[in-house]
Amino acid sequence: MKITKPTLLLDETKCRENIKFMVSKARNNKIEFRPHFKTHQSLEIGRWFKEEGVNKITVSSLEMAEFFSKVWNDITVAFPVNILEIETINNLAAKITLNLLVESEESITFLNSHLNSNVGYFIKIDLGSHRTGLDPADFFEIDKILNVSHNSELLIFKGFLGHAGQTYSCNSKKEIVDIQNYSLNIMKNLKEKYIEKYPDLIISIGDTPGCSVSDDFKGADEIRPGNFIFYDLMQLEIGSCAEEQIAVAMACPVVAVHKDRNEMVVYGGGIHFSKDRMEDKKFRTIYGRAAENCKTGWGKLIPDMYLKNISQEHGILSVPKDRISNYRIGDVIIILPVHSCMTADVMKCYMTLEGRLISMMRK
Amino acid sequence: MKITKPTLLLDETKCRENIKFMVSKARNNKIEFRPHFKTHQSLEIGRWFKEEGVNKITVSSLEMAEFFSKVWNDITVAFPVNILEIETINNLAAKITLNLLVESEESITFLNSHLNSNVGYFIKIDLGSHRTGLDPADFFEIDKILNVSHNSELLIFKGFLGHAGQTYSCNSKKEIVDIQNYSLNIMKNLKEKYIEKYPDLIISIGDTPGCSVSDDFKGADEIRPGNFIFYDLMQLEIGSCAEEQIAVAMACPVVAVHKDRNEMVVYGGGIHFSKDRMEDKKFRTIYGRAAENCKTGWGKLIPDMYLKNISQEHGILSVPKDRISNYRIGDVIIILPVHSCMTADVMKCYMTLEGRLISMMRK
Repeated sequence: MKITKPTLLLDETKCRENIKFMVSKARNNKIEFRPHFKTHQSLEIGRWFKEEGVNKITVSSLEMAEFFSKVWNDITVAFPVNILEIETINNLAAKITLNLLVESEESITFLNSHLNSNVGYFIKIDLGSHRTGLDPADFFEIDKILNVSHNSELLIFKGFLGHAGQTYSCNSKKEIVDIQNYSLNIMKNLKEKYIEKYPDLIISIGDTPGCSVSDDFKGADEIRPGNFIFYDLMQLEIGSCAEEQIAVAMACPVVAVHKDRNEMVVYGGGIHFSKDRMEDKKFRTIYGRAAENCKTGWGKLIPDMYLKNISQEHGILSVPKDRISNYRIGDVIIILPVHSCMTADVMKCYMTLEGRLISMMRK
Repeated sequence: MKITKPTLLLDETKCRENIKFMVSKARNNKIEFRPHFKTHQSLEIGRWFKEEGVNKITVSSLEMAEFFSKVWNDITVAFPVNILEIETINNLAAKITLNLLVESEESITFLNSHLNSNVGYFIKIDLGSHRTGLDPADFFEIDKILNVSHNSELLIFKGFLGHAGQTYSCNSKKEIVDIQNYSLNIMKNLKEKYIEKYPDLIISIGDTPGCSVSDDFKGADEIRPGNFIFYDLMQLEIGSCAEEQIAVAMACPVVAVHKDRNEMVVYGGGIHFSKDRMEDKKFRTIYGRAAENCKTGWGKLIPDMYLKNISQEHGILSVPKDRISNYRIGDVIIILPVHSCMTADVMKCYMTLEGRLISMMRK
């Protein structure tokens, strides 16, 4: 494995372990597992899921659904339907089982009058993150949507879907579990209210923190986590993974050493990591954390060695005083990302620890 | 111009005006103009510079130098030299005039023993941003570097180069001008000290705020601004451009309207804008601001209509109460980016207002 510039390393063993972990969790809880592929965006990594028996997936755009429709035939686009892409919707719906998200009468009415093939849809429910979705008590709006599809020959109501994104602000496993239970409770009420009229309706939930930490999925029929395939520092911080589960890291060449201020400049900036950042337990803003560079990958996180700032190509790495003299220009530092989904998206390619390149979807 | 998904619009007229503005500024001040191409990363936009007589450029990576070396034969890589890419350096140096940045004896010694062709180099000076570069008073280190190249047949000392990135934290034109003058003063001292021994040495400076606002470049021989080609909300905020000069904007479809909280969800998130953000004058964190959508492009910024949050594909747009009822699902909102360099880098493609696609470099 020869590194000459910022390279997103992927530890295939950890990655496959993460897949197996979530597959068994779903199996043990007797719920469908429809992993979100927006994190890895790769056909090859998709195959690792297939090998574990997964046959349904989630994506975040119609573009991504098109990409994966080459090998997957049951796809949910977990984003409020963008009616301007009706042509893509019709193309996809003609060849695969396509599920969309609807949260307004406007959208469902548009679909009803423009679809050429069967399309499943979920009603998007706001589980408390207030990003989008319908208030779970807004039966008036829910019924308006259902009324439109009830008279449609092509629209199939699949159930209620939510994403409790507020788990990303949690500080403990308990908080995450509490939110998961709160979500399940909301969904249980909806299911009870509508199950008689729609006996096949399902409940779909699934943020990575909730799915990683909780063992109780009672009331849910399907989970859709995505980030768990790689995890990252944010997930570690909120308690949804162990350090050893983080499966991607950036290899960054050292280009300058500033001993006077215990900093190094690495080749690795916003166009490699993305500009996502977080506050660590010491209230420092960080863009990544360095881990031990081992011959077979990377080891433990190095305390107090972190990316304190990044610009387009520069990463400013804060280095503990007693370590700074260990480093030379031309060394390679391994840095774990704050948000692996965003990092993967900008890098567009992985290198396994064996040196094999894995490509991703491109815009 | 048919928009169906997030699309980075480019106003070619504004863009060419921005180029002309900086070309004349350099000409009037009798200094070389070596624009930074990391912002646009496009061969076609590069040609617009050629049409104005520009023949030397700056880039931020060797990868980008390789990309532009197809049509440009004088390139400075304004990033501390990454010695791990010596192969690329030798390939490039064999065919074009290549300038690198050096800030340590280690790097120059490595180059000295590994180069196969002539390479120009600048000593990188820290002009106060403390990102990287040598302290301008560190003559000991400067002399060590110069001693190595003095005995080299291939290394040509070109001069001193700096980037006063701290202008990005300014709040007024006066502050920007003060920093520019401070930088020029530092460089003047270095020039005076070394000009006798190196009569051809030049002084290269050039952040977009300084180059946009200041009219005094005395002591500088070359400027290297990049962002000015598009400008953005950050530049507007610090006072380095007018609203009318911002030359790129994202067209984003509306996918949900939440009247109860005066918000809309647009299709346009972190993978489109990047996660760069800023604080506006009302201390709000913003990821973009909406502008009037005109038939011929976009008009004025709409007060208090801004991206308050973004996730991977979602953008949460705060909308003034008296405007929210104007919008429908399927409308297209034009949003100006916080940091155009990062936005362009993730989008990888522009659409002109005439609907023509302009491609960019790809990783």
